[in-house]
Amino acid sequence: MTIQPTRAVQNLVPYVPGLQPRTRGYLKLNSNENPYPPAPQVSAALRKATNPQLRIYPDPVCTSLRSILARRFKIPASNFIIGNGSDEILRLICQAYIDPGMRIGMFAPTYTLFETLGQMFQANIITYPLEDDYGMPSAVFSSRVKIFFLANPNSPVGTFYPPQLMARLLSTRPRTLFVLDEAYVDFAPQHCLRLLRRFRNLIITRTLSKSYSLAGLRIGFAVASPQIISQLYKIKDSYNVNRLSQVAAEAALRAVPYFRRNIQRIKQTRARVRRELQNLGFRVPLSHANFLFAIGQQTHKIYRQLKARKILVRYFTSESHTPGLRISIGTEREMTTLLRTLKNLIRGDKP
Amino acid sequence: MTIQPTRAVQNLVPYVPGLQPRTRGYLKLNSNENPYPPAPQVSAALRKATNPQLRIYPDPVCTSLRSILARRFKIPASNFIIGNGSDEILRLICQAYIDPGMRIGMFAPTYTLFETLGQMFQANIITYPLEDDYGMPSAVFSSRVKIFFLANPNSPVGTFYPPQLMARLLSTRPRTLFVLDEAYVDFAPQHCLRLLRRFRNLIITRTLSKSYSLAGLRIGFAVASPQIISQLYKIKDSYNVNRLSQVAAEAALRAVPYFRRNIQRIKQTRARVRRELQNLGFRVPLSHANFLFAIGQQTHKIYRQLKARKILVRYFTSESHTPGLRISIGTEREMTTLLRTLKNLIRGDKP
Repeated sequence: MTIQPTRAVQNLVPYVPGLQPRTRGYLKLNSNENPYPPAPQVSAALRKATNPQLRIYPDPVCTSLRSILARRFKIPASNFIIGNGSDEILRLICQAYIDPGMRIGMFAPTYTLFETLGQMFQANIITYPLEDDYGMPSAVFSSRVKIFFLANPNSPVGTFYPPQLMARLLSTRPRTLFVLDEAYVDFAPQHCLRLLRRFRNLIITRTLSKSYSLAGLRIGFAVASPQIISQLYKIKDSYNVNRLSQVAAEAALRAVPYFRRNIQRIKQTRARVRRELQNLGFRVPLSHANFLFAIGQQTHKIYRQLKARKILVRYFTSESHTPGLRISIGTEREMTTLLRTLKNLIRGDKP
Repeated sequence: MTIQPTRAVQNLVPYVPGLQPRTRGYLKLNSNENPYPPAPQVSAALRKATNPQLRIYPDPVCTSLRSILARRFKIPASNFIIGNGSDEILRLICQAYIDPGMRIGMFAPTYTLFETLGQMFQANIITYPLEDDYGMPSAVFSSRVKIFFLANPNSPVGTFYPPQLMARLLSTRPRTLFVLDEAYVDFAPQHCLRLLRRFRNLIITRTLSKSYSLAGLRIGFAVASPQIISQLYKIKDSYNVNRLSQVAAEAALRAVPYFRRNIQRIKQTRARVRRELQNLGFRVPLSHANFLFAIGQQTHKIYRQLKARKILVRYFTSESHTPGLRISIGTEREMTTLLRTLKNLIRGDKP
């Protein structure tokens, strides 16, 4: 006989991440990875950190990494928790705060993991469709939910909600815990960390997967009041962040000039690609992330044609908005390849 | 105002792992880490795997690592799931199968994480005290629980329950899912993997933290029927095992002669240390793990005295059994230091 899992798990539709091809030769613009390698200091630190210390468990609370973050952001180390990617942090928040049937809120569209996690923990999910221009809907200001999940910049479009707007939302709904996923914020003009001083109903999550080119090493973190952070510590796996990821994260965070140049390059490429996509006839909303959302005719067909040519982008549909292609910003050269291929496809030439 | 977590999390007493001193100079015999470094092939593989691929997400389902495990154990790759340490796997099992109030069983004493996880998922925990000689209590054969958690060899004593006994238990209780944690099994004379062919109510968990010297990289796995494994895949974080840990695990699993020599050395040291602890007057039950459990007078005092001399062992108490010291097997030289210090303490000399 087979022993059955809980009903919530039986019914669960798992989150589907962007395709990770195992063969080479793909131009991978589907998971918002950084096209540039991590800082050279990361490799140097990793080489020093291999054998023989790997036999010892890692620091369960990432003391050194948190102290670097504390100095960098001028926030006490006790306000941080480090996760095996920010996905782990988001799951910990759900596990710590969601009781079955509890009302949680999120935009539509947004980071699709929010919905998967809500289902996993049997929340009652209330979605707030964004305005036609992806602006924040006014209904959010009267939302009665225990937790509200936002990504800022938001996916799949890259819309950025400025800190003043966020502050207004946080003060209007003081009984709602706002989980603000700033995965892409290093590509945006501002961030919301300083709101943590004023608001106790705020958790901000960050990742080193995008702006620090460390998706392969799984490092994310949350910043919030020590009261909130201590609840997450209670339920995390004891040794959730391995030794090499801790070392790599520390080295990456210290390499500030490399980080700034990397961000700058991606923003420049983003501006150029947006103009060229517009010239090709796509509608491309302003994005403050390391991706662009291209809306136009037959985007699903174009998605499949690109895939057949070994160019992976992500096709997004939603009930409330026009479907489109989410295209990660690659190197200048990669984007030139993409744009040339798109031009040929749209003109109907065989490239 | 502060937003409260769920009642289960509010009430939770977190698992306390062995002390991880951040300063050097400790003799660390408290976390059952392997005293020998990982195979040299691991460093070589890690050096090759650093920059620039770290910018890309890891394989979410560890395809290459699972195929190595499949060949090694002659079990299909679809029967495996890889975790960020076997602690993650154990948590996934609880999350997938435990409904609040559900009866789960475990020995007393055993791996203390089982109880923490049971509380986290609001199980009704039924404990079965081991016999005085740490044998399996007969009450287990009439247990009415949905899940039973066992470690084999068991902690903190190192008792090994042979596969024939496990088979009898599995066939007697076909409606109970048995989670058999074989973290230490490479130091034991047999294992239970072949029982998976006969029994669908069995999940076996393993780790590379102990016998493969990779505690710092967090790699564990579960083996069970694809029906069970698929439930765990649904709820795991998408990219739960980072790139470098996957690479290191593959290299470590391929280095079979190094692995065998390592195990052999630890077993030899274990036999010697057991005799010498017995000569010092301790009662030391037979252990098939990489640790020994020393029972005697004033073990808590000895624990503190050792700690003051920068030797860390673990002091375990239980309601049902005499307290004692769990001592991880270190190198020959480390164990000589420990035994000399113990001798001096017991004789009352100042070492």
